[in-house]
Amino acid sequence: MDERVIANIKSLGIDMIHQAKSGHPGIVLSAAPILYTLYANHLNVNTSDASWKNRDRFVMSAGHGSALLYATLYMAGFNLDLEDLKNFRRVGYKTPGHPEYGVTPGVDASTGPLGQGIAMAVGMAIAEKVSASHTPIEDHSLIDHDIYTLVGDGDLMEGISYEATSLAGSLALDNLIVLYDSNQISLDGKTENVFDDDMEKRFHSIGWDYEFVKNGEDIKTIDNAISKAKKNKKPTIIEIRTILGRGSLLEGNHVVHGKPLEDDDISQLKQNLKIQDTAFFVDEEAKDYFRKKMAERSDSKYQRWASDYKKFSSKSDNLNDYAYLFGRKTFYNFLDFPFVLEDKKEATRATNKKIMNQIIPYIKSMIGGSADLASATNVIIDSEKDILKEDFSGKNIHFGVREHAMGAILNGMALSNLKPYGSTFLTFSDYLKPAIRMSALMKLPVTYIFSHDSFLVGQDGPTHQPIEQISALRNIPNVKVYRPCDKNELIGCWNEIANTYHHPSILLLSRTEVETLENSQAKEVQRGAYIIRKESKQIDGIIVATGSEIAMAYHLAESLWKGQQIDMRVVSMPCMESFFAQDITYQESILPKEKLTFVIEAASSSDWYRIASNKDCLFTVDQFGVSGTKDEVINYFHYDFNSIKNDILRQIKK
Amino acid sequence: MDERVIANIKSLGIDMIHQAKSGHPGIVLSAAPILYTLYANHLNVNTSDASWKNRDRFVMSAGHGSALLYATLYMAGFNLDLEDLKNFRRVGYKTPGHPEYGVTPGVDASTGPLGQGIAMAVGMAIAEKVSASHTPIEDHSLIDHDIYTLVGDGDLMEGISYEATSLAGSLALDNLIVLYDSNQISLDGKTENVFDDDMEKRFHSIGWDYEFVKNGEDIKTIDNAISKAKKNKKPTIIEIRTILGRGSLLEGNHVVHGKPLEDDDISQLKQNLKIQDTAFFVDEEAKDYFRKKMAERSDSKYQRWASDYKKFSSKSDNLNDYAYLFGRKTFYNFLDFPFVLEDKKEATRATNKKIMNQIIPYIKSMIGGSADLASATNVIIDSEKDILKEDFSGKNIHFGVREHAMGAILNGMALSNLKPYGSTFLTFSDYLKPAIRMSALMKLPVTYIFSHDSFLVGQDGPTHQPIEQISALRNIPNVKVYRPCDKNELIGCWNEIANTYHHPSILLLSRTEVETLENSQAKEVQRGAYIIRKESKQIDGIIVATGSEIAMAYHLAESLWKGQQIDMRVVSMPCMESFFAQDITYQESILPKEKLTFVIEAASSSDWYRIASNKDCLFTVDQFGVSGTKDEVINYFHYDFNSIKNDILRQIKK
Repeated sequence: MDERVIANIKSLGIDMIHQAKSGHPGIVLSAAPILYTLYANHLNVNTSDASWKNRDRFVMSAGHGSALLYATLYMAGFNLDLEDLKNFRRVGYKTPGHPEYGVTPGVDASTGPLGQGIAMAVGMAIAEKVSASHTPIEDHSLIDHDIYTLVGDGDLMEGISYEATSLAGSLALDNLIVLYDSNQISLDGKTENVFDDDMEKRFHSIGWDYEFVKNGEDIKTIDNAISKAKKNKKPTIIEIRTILGRGSLLEGNHVVHGKPLEDDDISQLKQNLKIQDTAFFVDEEAKDYFRKKMAERSDSKYQRWASDYKKFSSKSDNLNDYAYLFGRKTFYNFLDFPFVLEDKKEATRATNKKIMNQIIPYIKSMIGGSADLASATNVIIDSEKDILKEDFSGKNIHFGVREHAMGAILNGMALSNLKPYGSTFLTFSDYLKPAIRMSALMKLPVTYIFSHDSFLVGQDGPTHQPIEQISALRNIPNVKVYRPCDKNELIGCWNEIANTYHHPSILLLSRTEVETLENSQAKEVQRGAYIIRKESKQIDGIIVATGSEIAMAYHLAESLWKGQQIDMRVVSMPCMESFFAQDITYQESILPKEKLTFVIEAASSSDWYRIASNKDCLFTVDQFGVSGTKDEVINYFHYDFNSIKNDILRQIKK
Repeated sequence: MDERVIANIKSLGIDMIHQAKSGHPGIVLSAAPILYTLYANHLNVNTSDASWKNRDRFVMSAGHGSALLYATLYMAGFNLDLEDLKNFRRVGYKTPGHPEYGVTPGVDASTGPLGQGIAMAVGMAIAEKVSASHTPIEDHSLIDHDIYTLVGDGDLMEGISYEATSLAGSLALDNLIVLYDSNQISLDGKTENVFDDDMEKRFHSIGWDYEFVKNGEDIKTIDNAISKAKKNKKPTIIEIRTILGRGSLLEGNHVVHGKPLEDDDISQLKQNLKIQDTAFFVDEEAKDYFRKKMAERSDSKYQRWASDYKKFSSKSDNLNDYAYLFGRKTFYNFLDFPFVLEDKKEATRATNKKIMNQIIPYIKSMIGGSADLASATNVIIDSEKDILKEDFSGKNIHFGVREHAMGAILNGMALSNLKPYGSTFLTFSDYLKPAIRMSALMKLPVTYIFSHDSFLVGQDGPTHQPIEQISALRNIPNVKVYRPCDKNELIGCWNEIANTYHHPSILLLSRTEVETLENSQAKEVQRGAYIIRKESKQIDGIIVATGSEIAMAYHLAESLWKGQQIDMRVVSMPCMESFFAQDITYQESILPKEKLTFVIEAASSSDWYRIASNKDCLFTVDQFGVSGTKDEVINYFHYDFNSIKNDILRQIKK
């Protein structure tokens, strides 16, 4: 009967691709036995409660295998209709071209860009360990699940997968099992001559267990390998040798990777699979068998968990402490929090450390670290332990110099109900951009903290001086980028971030010292922009600035007023996205139309044409920097007080 | 005497960092013996002709080791003054904070962002093999050099280094030797618990040879290991166990990684090194010894090469064919090239393949490929062979699913006088952004070809639909982004790209079919924008568009004229950067001020506020896409002809 289910998963997957005239048949035919074995015999899930907090996770890292996944989910009994399968890759159905989190019940992560899935699975495995260590000892069974992911050659060629698996080895994540559909063919042809890694050696070198299954149709051996992997004390990769497009006339040919099969090929395939040659035929007996098999294994575990959870949640304050871990949101008011902060000039990265150290210990769900730059970004909680393979109860994760994996791991952790953060220099945000995009696509509450946020870093030179990065981040949909000017705005940013559950946040911090401004406002961060220096009588002009440039804008306005009786408004804009989300009345109350408007931000101009009156009103930077002391670099860019003041004067007098 | 040179390199490096109050002393003290051994005994270079085409390359992948590199280059006799060392990390000197190509004689690549250097070294090694195979057999000695790189733990943690070294193994690059400063400490502390890779197993698993030197001060063993590596038939990594900050009071402590030493620490260090305790003391005897040693080894090889090159270049047509390989530029006129192209609707990725297949075989220096998407980006030259370990004379490189390494490898190849290109989907340009930035910083003639350039890819869904990518790429300084609308503009783009030697180019291609427009102009690409539909009598408005949106803009204008007698100009802007580089007279002749100006580009709005009259004139996309057929996706975004036409009408009638 197992064979009949597998045959039906294959035929449905092939029919979906045929109907959509688009998709990837190769993996459907190579990996169906693997996915079936996993779901039928191992994966603890509840098809009627697909977001059960203690379910085993499955990530289809080879996201182009979506048809295989949907066919399996349908047969397994998740809430998908045959109509969804028939409308594969169409708007309005639960079967998008690549798996999308939040769209399809049973899909635990959006995938498609290769390597992201396996790295998210590592994040989920860390989250499981962390969450288990956070629940009181007597309630450990509340968080007690495994993470599985199916990967192809492409996933393992991507650097992000190496980064993530290397860290997984160092952390001995024994709750992580990677199923490797090893068909030795990628889109452009055989992997030979391009990708000759010895996988056994490679994974042994990074502290993993390795299993090999030489025949990908042999579900008994696959089953045994998974059973063995569950008992290992290390993460395990099971390399399963398969044949791409097995059973198709194009079997083993790279063309079958991404091209729908022809009609006659489908007919002969179904004949050999002993499946009725009718599009979207469902073998009801096989389907029932599969569903029953899953239920028999998982249902009792689910019931036991539900009852344990009921007991746990009845105990006072548990839900407050562990709320988000179990999918409930907690709201915080940090505007009135009694922060202990000095009143001195310091870099926002330094102030941020003090703020985080005062609030993060109280937010159970927040945890994070840095890609080996904690000493520079200052993102470390001194009172908390490091996350280590023998102890996951701390809050400081050392990701190593692995920015890209860090981003994806944060996504995986967020998918498992944590609110993680990660940090590096702003210029290196480029390294993890693909993962930030995935945070945004999935609307995950991940916080990225990027310090050294302008060319003012100086001596490290142009490779370390961000120019185009702020704009690149602002342009990602669903993201809020915060660039606070001082401790007050920083508090406001954290009040936003701590209460954010539906999109990623990016916090930009200075290495350069800033003063605390008299009129800076924590509470105004929410609206994205506000008047930090009001004009005295009339508006002769407006200066909009952000972050470390606010003080200069403020003093420029003061100087213009005292020296030339020019009356300038200064607007601080810690979050452009929030400002443009306000109603037009508010926007125009801050930035009245037809007023000469200048912008000072030590970064690319492109975002600011929307606000500045014209090109000459932009004090932005569209070229690479230079290595020098802070003052030398400021001179290099003509970014000093007097140069900008004179330019503003010239514009106003025009 | 060797010890005296090493001591002096160390003391100079430490003095530089002390004087600059900034830099990385740890690596100076751990890796000086390695660098000295390499330069003194192996590296074939000519200090008076630092850009000698057949020199051995050295890439300081651990770019924070700049002080060590500069001290070594100075002692070795490259054109640096003691003043340069005294002004380390200052504007106007040859000693920037991280090594910068083009600034310091002897620096073969800009480095700093970890992992880029080792991946560029792989590119240089490929370039050496390719260039050697391109020179006539009797002249093989003209290109016959080795590539060395010094890496730290950080480099090897980065995914890009895994990607690049895995490919290097598959290509058996025996001209590549990696010196691994294995001090087991990174910025945030010990690598234990974070990075536990077994390096011997890891590199064996990807087809490398591995050598281990247990004492990093033992220059004889280092020397032997390098000698052995030069004879290997595989790439070699030599792991040299060192002690971070060796000899400092902070020896072995992660703090010494990036913090200048205190005065008393410097004194005791110099005492133990038997170096006079005077800042920037130079041991002249030691210096002379080092310089003589290098000259004795390298000079004869250089002289022989110069004489061979003279003979080679006197042979007719050699220099035409191989010009760029030896640093000369060739200029092409493809505007008058007799391209064979059909007159049919087709995707620009398809037309681009035809154009590339007609010109690339004739451009010796151009070579490239795809990150396993050649079948989709269509970047493949059918008449040329694949690059394989046994044969580098082809033109098609299969990078594997390794976008990031591809970018850095292209940079390495460009640094070795090739004009390489690489391709993937536009949405995956994110994966290689850090490498594109390095292309731009170094102003290298690398061409990136990104197909599937808008949400019109449809069914693959939002992960595969670029939104913010075009803007992100345009905002990188020194880059030109081309988005041609049809075959004529494509020819114009290639005429630009083929003649570009001083910056990277990015070519965006559609998956969707486009028609050839009556008035599209190859020759106008040079100026970035031109009138593709002139108004009949007066300008009622202007529509600016790019790429696959041009045809719609054109037909909209036609329809508005025929239906409503509204007289629209349509401007095609295949290259925004080139347009804004024109004089203001030209710019205003194309886009007269005060005319209602619309923009149609299926991507982020941010770049276009500079051009559009207001927000409502933007037909751009600031949200993620959806999986569906092309028409479904167009409807989802209200991006159909009639919706846009009605919106334009409404604006004009306002």
